[in-house]
Amino acid sequence: MLRLQPHSAVPLVSQIVDGLAAQIEAGALIAGSKLPSIRQFAQNHQVSVFTVVEAYDRLVAQGHLVSRPHSGFFVRRRAEAGGAQASARRPQGFDTMWYLRKIFENRHLAIKAGCGWLPGDWLFEDGLRRALRHLAADEADLGGYGDPKGYPPLRQTIADAFAEKDLAVHPEQVLLTQGSSQALDLAVRRLVHAGDAVLVDDPGYANLLFSLRFQGATLLGVPRTPQGYDLVALEKLIVTHQPKVFFTQPRLQSPTGSVATPAHLHRVLQLADQHGITLVENDIYVNLDPVLRPTLASLDQLNRVITIGSYSKTISPNMRVGYLVAHPDMVEDLAQLKMISGLTSAEFSERLAHGVITEGRWRKHLKSLRDRLGEAHQTVAERLRGLGFELFAEPGAGMFLWARHPAVPDAVALSNRAVEHDIMLGPGHLFLADLAPTPWMRFNVAFCGDERLYAFLAGQLQAPAQFD
Amino acid sequence: MLRLQPHSAVPLVSQIVDGLAAQIEAGALIAGSKLPSIRQFAQNHQVSVFTVVEAYDRLVAQGHLVSRPHSGFFVRRRAEAGGAQASARRPQGFDTMWYLRKIFENRHLAIKAGCGWLPGDWLFEDGLRRALRHLAADEADLGGYGDPKGYPPLRQTIADAFAEKDLAVHPEQVLLTQGSSQALDLAVRRLVHAGDAVLVDDPGYANLLFSLRFQGATLLGVPRTPQGYDLVALEKLIVTHQPKVFFTQPRLQSPTGSVATPAHLHRVLQLADQHGITLVENDIYVNLDPVLRPTLASLDQLNRVITIGSYSKTISPNMRVGYLVAHPDMVEDLAQLKMISGLTSAEFSERLAHGVITEGRWRKHLKSLRDRLGEAHQTVAERLRGLGFELFAEPGAGMFLWARHPAVPDAVALSNRAVEHDIMLGPGHLFLADLAPTPWMRFNVAFCGDERLYAFLAGQLQAPAQFD
Repeated sequence: MLRLQPHSAVPLVSQIVDGLAAQIEAGALIAGSKLPSIRQFAQNHQVSVFTVVEAYDRLVAQGHLVSRPHSGFFVRRRAEAGGAQASARRPQGFDTMWYLRKIFENRHLAIKAGCGWLPGDWLFEDGLRRALRHLAADEADLGGYGDPKGYPPLRQTIADAFAEKDLAVHPEQVLLTQGSSQALDLAVRRLVHAGDAVLVDDPGYANLLFSLRFQGATLLGVPRTPQGYDLVALEKLIVTHQPKVFFTQPRLQSPTGSVATPAHLHRVLQLADQHGITLVENDIYVNLDPVLRPTLASLDQLNRVITIGSYSKTISPNMRVGYLVAHPDMVEDLAQLKMISGLTSAEFSERLAHGVITEGRWRKHLKSLRDRLGEAHQTVAERLRGLGFELFAEPGAGMFLWARHPAVPDAVALSNRAVEHDIMLGPGHLFLADLAPTPWMRFNVAFCGDERLYAFLAGQLQAPAQFD
Repeated sequence: MLRLQPHSAVPLVSQIVDGLAAQIEAGALIAGSKLPSIRQFAQNHQVSVFTVVEAYDRLVAQGHLVSRPHSGFFVRRRAEAGGAQASARRPQGFDTMWYLRKIFENRHLAIKAGCGWLPGDWLFEDGLRRALRHLAADEADLGGYGDPKGYPPLRQTIADAFAEKDLAVHPEQVLLTQGSSQALDLAVRRLVHAGDAVLVDDPGYANLLFSLRFQGATLLGVPRTPQGYDLVALEKLIVTHQPKVFFTQPRLQSPTGSVATPAHLHRVLQLADQHGITLVENDIYVNLDPVLRPTLASLDQLNRVITIGSYSKTISPNMRVGYLVAHPDMVEDLAQLKMISGLTSAEFSERLAHGVITEGRWRKHLKSLRDRLGEAHQTVAERLRGLGFELFAEPGAGMFLWARHPAVPDAVALSNRAVEHDIMLGPGHLFLADLAPTPWMRFNVAFCGDERLYAFLAGQLQAPAQFD
């Protein structure tokens, strides 16, 4: 039986983590056995529920416990299904991925203030439903594998859209992917080997950072600024570590919402040229941007830039249709990798996306989506400032605001309490190269219209967190 | 200008390959420049078209040339898009992947005797179209990301189907994937590290072998027999190399069509238990099998088996819906990997698959598909034997026959000639662990109904190939 010492200098969370880990390693808690529920444990040991949540979370992250939805926490079976060797060799960064999964599972909470997608009714469900009906009525062949690079008419449409943005692209340079995530994953697998040092936005896109950690990369965080990058730090990282690739999101970045200026893009390209660096430009928010801007890809004309896009933020993430565009030779390599990791993408979904985009009401939908986001930005920025939050940037477009509050030293504790109020926040550490505790949080303006969010935040800011 | 010496002891193909490679490396042929067409080159140098096809193929495999569909062969730009370093570090086995791609591109040939899928009109296009119409009419939410493990009702349906096959599976143990290819890829990434020795069927599923090579694995080919495996060779490989994983397809295997007996499965499991080996069972042809058989998964009850399935062979490959089922802890790991490499799968396609399977006519479709394949097996086996082919196994079910002919020493030359007759063959080397030349070929009985195939084969067997 675990005995906690409430007056010890060791935090209660650490006492629980260390105590249970020791019991598991000693075999006192056997593999596969179920732990007491969070509430039960809290009651037995007279500690707060938040303390137990935090402790169980850490034990999962450490690989001692597994969490099974709707059934609870169990002692992990280390020796099974894969053999002891396979378990012992779980790649670094695997367990931290669990946090991301947890965030994802919180998507059922009523108020998704920190999430990374748009509400269904902001997307183009009508257009999607019309395209579905057309596809069902269409007598086109639905058998067979599609083209390895993806449905050719959609690739043509994407090439046409780039032409409007000062970038001449041949449809053979367009590779369709299962959302932008597969595009990023292909780039990671093609360009990054275990042990490589890789430049990333810091803070940056959480899922990419986890993917790079899984690949065994060393992350070199390039500090993000409201104008783009800390260019001095960038140059220093390049000179010191000689990285070969920089994954970045210049436009309406997740999580900061910031937009890199053309001068910053030019300087990044200059450094990349000098040091032989490939740039992977995540530009999935291009259609949420009311302004036509140069991109790394348009400045460089795809000499050393791979650019990535998606329809998840404008039609529906449910379709999983994204794309990447690059130099012809690079596209051939990535197309081969795509075949290895799943043969073709679903031509089905690609036909749907093509139907939606070419049906005529697409541009009008984009315009109204941008207007709606612009208004939400104004309202939410005002509300957060009113509560005393500091805003990193005020892009007035896209989905995100990055904010912190002097009364909140660590966003994780606040996020855990928010879950109890049916609110999903976006704690900032998930987006950091070193996953260190941080007061910063990501807000998705499209999900910040509910008064209960501000009531919760106001309440928490008045009564500072009780730390165990 | 390249000068060929027709009377040299060096084969013409090698003269062309070495000559062009030297010109490219010396810069006489500059990066990005287009080569003469195959016919043009053959005419200029007075050699056969097949000689040039073979030479260009090898130069592509070596990374000197790239082939662009509908436009021709070009000198590869080594230094671009990724930098010289990235190019120099292309993982081993990358170039051989090109062969697979070429096979895939031959899917537009009229007679696809060697391909790995079923004709559209053998699949369940009617059911798919009905499910599409229902989905379009349904007022269900089409926004949002689906569940990371996939659409829950489909996971329940899959669990129910396993229950009928003596395997109790909880829906949380079912992970939906983008076709069986993503399931295999996840298993590869979770279980195999560069340098690992891995057991595979030999011959085996070509795409898996390429994926393992890309991952940097050393392939240990377990010789396939009509009854399953060369068990003596298997044990010897295990004792010598201590592999930790065996990727195998016991049932109606691609390419041989063979089915492993229950006694063989039992012995494989026994060896796996003794030596701590994880078994990845590719069982994508389960629904094409008229016989209810034990599987590795059902014998072992998912203790050390990951089993993989798909709807590509029964509904349509175009949807890209597959699944894997494993021990709960293993499924959690693979679900995290799935999120890394593409977030969720397309719930969209998963809803469609669920609609098709539960609509009532599904079992009738499967029955008629199996009957049709059974009849085709009988006819095609007779025709091939009549031409003097030796058959490796006669499963009477599934899609494949594995055959060789005493007059054909290497299936590649025959396959290249077949392309000129609008016929896609399945040359055997693609399926071998060592990619060595072989007389064996894969025939897909569903695509072997055309008289022109037999006319072509008969003609080739009478007049032996002219080798340069």
